[in-house]
Amino acid sequence: MTISFRLTSAGRDPVAPRTGILTTGRGDVRTPAFMPVGTLATVKALLPEEVSAAGAEIMLVNAYHLYLRPGHRLVAELGGVHRFMGWPGPVLSDSGGFQVFSLARLGKVDDSGVRFRSHIDGSEHFYTPELAIEVQQALGVDIAMPLDHVLPGDAALDASRDAAERTLRWYDRCAAAAGSLATFAIVQGGVHSDLRRWHARELARRDAPGYSIGGLSVGESKEDMWAMTAVVTSELPVDRPRYLMGVGSPEDLVNAVARGVDMFDCVLPTRLGRNGSLFTDGGRANVRNARYRDDRGPIVPDCDCLACTRFSAAYLHHLFRNDELLGYRLASIHNIRYLVHLTERMHAAIGAGVFDTFASDFLAHYQASDAAVRSDQKARWLRQSGFESAPPP
Amino acid sequence: MTISFRLTSAGRDPVAPRTGILTTGRGDVRTPAFMPVGTLATVKALLPEEVSAAGAEIMLVNAYHLYLRPGHRLVAELGGVHRFMGWPGPVLSDSGGFQVFSLARLGKVDDSGVRFRSHIDGSEHFYTPELAIEVQQALGVDIAMPLDHVLPGDAALDASRDAAERTLRWYDRCAAAAGSLATFAIVQGGVHSDLRRWHARELARRDAPGYSIGGLSVGESKEDMWAMTAVVTSELPVDRPRYLMGVGSPEDLVNAVARGVDMFDCVLPTRLGRNGSLFTDGGRANVRNARYRDDRGPIVPDCDCLACTRFSAAYLHHLFRNDELLGYRLASIHNIRYLVHLTERMHAAIGAGVFDTFASDFLAHYQASDAAVRSDQKARWLRQSGFESAPPP
Repeated sequence: MTISFRLTSAGRDPVAPRTGILTTGRGDVRTPAFMPVGTLATVKALLPEEVSAAGAEIMLVNAYHLYLRPGHRLVAELGGVHRFMGWPGPVLSDSGGFQVFSLARLGKVDDSGVRFRSHIDGSEHFYTPELAIEVQQALGVDIAMPLDHVLPGDAALDASRDAAERTLRWYDRCAAAAGSLATFAIVQGGVHSDLRRWHARELARRDAPGYSIGGLSVGESKEDMWAMTAVVTSELPVDRPRYLMGVGSPEDLVNAVARGVDMFDCVLPTRLGRNGSLFTDGGRANVRNARYRDDRGPIVPDCDCLACTRFSAAYLHHLFRNDELLGYRLASIHNIRYLVHLTERMHAAIGAGVFDTFASDFLAHYQASDAAVRSDQKARWLRQSGFESAPPP
Repeated sequence: MTISFRLTSAGRDPVAPRTGILTTGRGDVRTPAFMPVGTLATVKALLPEEVSAAGAEIMLVNAYHLYLRPGHRLVAELGGVHRFMGWPGPVLSDSGGFQVFSLARLGKVDDSGVRFRSHIDGSEHFYTPELAIEVQQALGVDIAMPLDHVLPGDAALDASRDAAERTLRWYDRCAAAAGSLATFAIVQGGVHSDLRRWHARELARRDAPGYSIGGLSVGESKEDMWAMTAVVTSELPVDRPRYLMGVGSPEDLVNAVARGVDMFDCVLPTRLGRNGSLFTDGGRANVRNARYRDDRGPIVPDCDCLACTRFSAAYLHHLFRNDELLGYRLASIHNIRYLVHLTERMHAAIGAGVFDTFASDFLAHYQASDAAVRSDQKARWLRQSGFESAPPP
C-alpha cells in the first residue's frame, strides 16, 4: 500500500510552516496532523468513533506492544489491526525501536539486532530490522517505521554516532524488507548538530516516502530540541512529510510546525486527561481544582468537544473527585480534540499567511508547564532499566 | 411531579407476571424494567446515550452518595440531577437508607433518625426521613424512596420487627414531606413471613404510588428471598408497580417477574463488566479466559449490543488482558443490554401468554454462579462495619 504527499501551502524554505495532504489507501490526512496514540490498538478509554469525532484522521499503534500482546500473527489472522480495533482510517505504527530501548529490559545490541526481555513477563526476544517490518506488515498498517537505535537525550557524541550509523544500516535493511509497505526513515543523532545533519542528509538521499525525527523529547533541553528539529528539517526534502515522534504538548506542536514539521503523536492528551488535566489556550486546567466545584459552564467555553458542549465543569469536577471512569473519557476526548483543533487552527493560519502572528500570540498566552512535564519525562526515562543496566555500545 | 402506572397484561393474581407502563413526567417506562445504577450520577464508565442505546428507559441514582458528594444543594443549583448528568429520561433515587445502614459508619438509630459517619471522610451526619425527602427533592428525581431501616439478611425476628415498625413510621413522615414527589413505600421485615405480610398490608393501606421490596438479596438464602417476594406481592395492590431493590442477576430477574415484580436495579452488570464477566443465556462468560484469545466472533452471537455487533471476542479478550478502559466500557454496555433485553423478552413472553415456558427454559439453560455471587454479597455485607459495631436496637 503506497502513500503520497502533496503540499498545499508552502514556500521553498524547508524550515517553515506548511500544509499538506497525506494520501493513504484508507483516506487522506490533512497536515499538520496530530495522531492519537492507540498503543495496544485502543486509544485509552475511547471508541474509534470518538477519536474520529475529535477530528483525528490517522491513528498510531505500537508494534512492540502488539508483537508481545496479542502477537502480530494473531492480529493478522483476525484480519489486521484496522479490523481488530474497528478503526477504518489510516494507521501509522511505531516500529518498537523506542520501546525496546526504553521500556524493555535491554540485552545485547549489535548490527544483527536487539536482544531484550519483555517488560510484561520477562520473556526473551531478538528483534531485528526485518522482524520489525514483518510485525508491521502483519498488523497491516498504512505507514511503518524502521527499527531505530534510540538513546537518552543526554547521550554523548560517540554513543550517538554509533547509534545513528546503526540506525542508517537498519533503515536500509528495513527498506529492503518493506516491499510495498510505506516505511518512513527515522533521523537520529542526539543533540549533536553535525551528526543530525549528516544523518538527515544520508537518509534524504535514500528517498523515503516520509521522514521521522526520533530521539527528541527524551530528556534533552527545549533549546536542543528545537535546534535539532530545525537542523533536520533544513536537510530533508521539502516534498516529504516530516513526523516529530512522541511530541507533544500544545506549545511543542506550535514550535515544531514553525520549523516545518507535519505530523505528531503523543500519549500526553490521554495520560493528562486521566489525571484531570485539560488543555486550554491559557495552559492546563486541572478539573480537580476546587474552583470548578460549582462551575456550571464548560471547562473551555469555545471548545466544540463532547465534554465541553454537553457537560459542566462542575460535573467533570464531580466525576474526577470520585474517580469515575467517565471523567477519564471526557477529559481524554477534550485533550485530543484540543490538539487536533490546534493543528486545524495552524492549518488555517498557514493558509492565510499569518502563522507567525498566530504562533507568537499562542505562545505568549499559553502557560506551559514545562518543568513539570519534562521532569516527568526525564524521570520515566531514567527509570528505564535498559539504559541503566546496559549502556549503549 | 406525579407518576401513573397502567397494567397492559395481567390477570387478577397479584403474584403473577405482568407487563405495564409506568408514566413519568420525563417519559414512559415499559415494565418489567431494569434500571441501570448511576450511584454518583454516572452509570460507571458510560455516557447517558450509551445507557439509552442499551434500551434502558429509567436510571437510578443514590441520594446518600449525592448528599455527601457533591451535595444535593449544589446539584439543585446546577439545575438538578438530570441536567447535571445529561440524562433527560426518568430517574429514580434510592433514599440512602441502605447505604446509611451498610456503607456508612452507623451511629445511634432511633425514631428521630440515624446518626452516621461518612464512609468518605468520617464526617458526622444526622439523616432523617424529612432530610431523605429533601435531598431527593433537591436532586429533582421523578421517583423517590422513603428512608427505611435496613438489616442484614440473617436479622432475628425482634430486630426485624423493630426495624419494620420504624420503617412504617418513617414512611408516614416521608409521605407527609414529599408533597408532589412520587414516593414509593418500602416493605421490610427480613425473612419473617408474618412480619413481611403485616408490613406489606400496612403499607398497602397507605396507597403509595408504588411499592419497593427492600432488605432482600442481603445475605439471606435464595429460598427465603423468593418466599418473601411472593408473600409481599400477594399483599400489594395489583395496580401499583413493584420494585425489588438491588436485584439482580439474570436468573433473579426471571424468578422475580414470575412472582409479580415490575422493576429492578443492580450494580451487577457494570461491576461484573469491569471484571470481564459477561452475561450470556448459558451463564456468565469470562472474556479473560484463554479460549477467547483467537475468537473472531462476538462474545454473544445473537446480541445486538455495541460490543457484540462491532468487536470480536478476541479484541475484548485483548482489552481485558491489558486492563484497557475500553474493555470495561464494552462489557458494561453488553451486560446492561443483556438485562434490559431480558426484560424485553419477558415482556414479549407475558404478552404472548408463554411466560412460564420462557422462564423454565431460561432457568434450565442458565448456569447461575450463585455461590460466587452470594458469597461476594455476604462478604461485602459483613465488611460493613455499621452492622458489626452497632447491632440493631
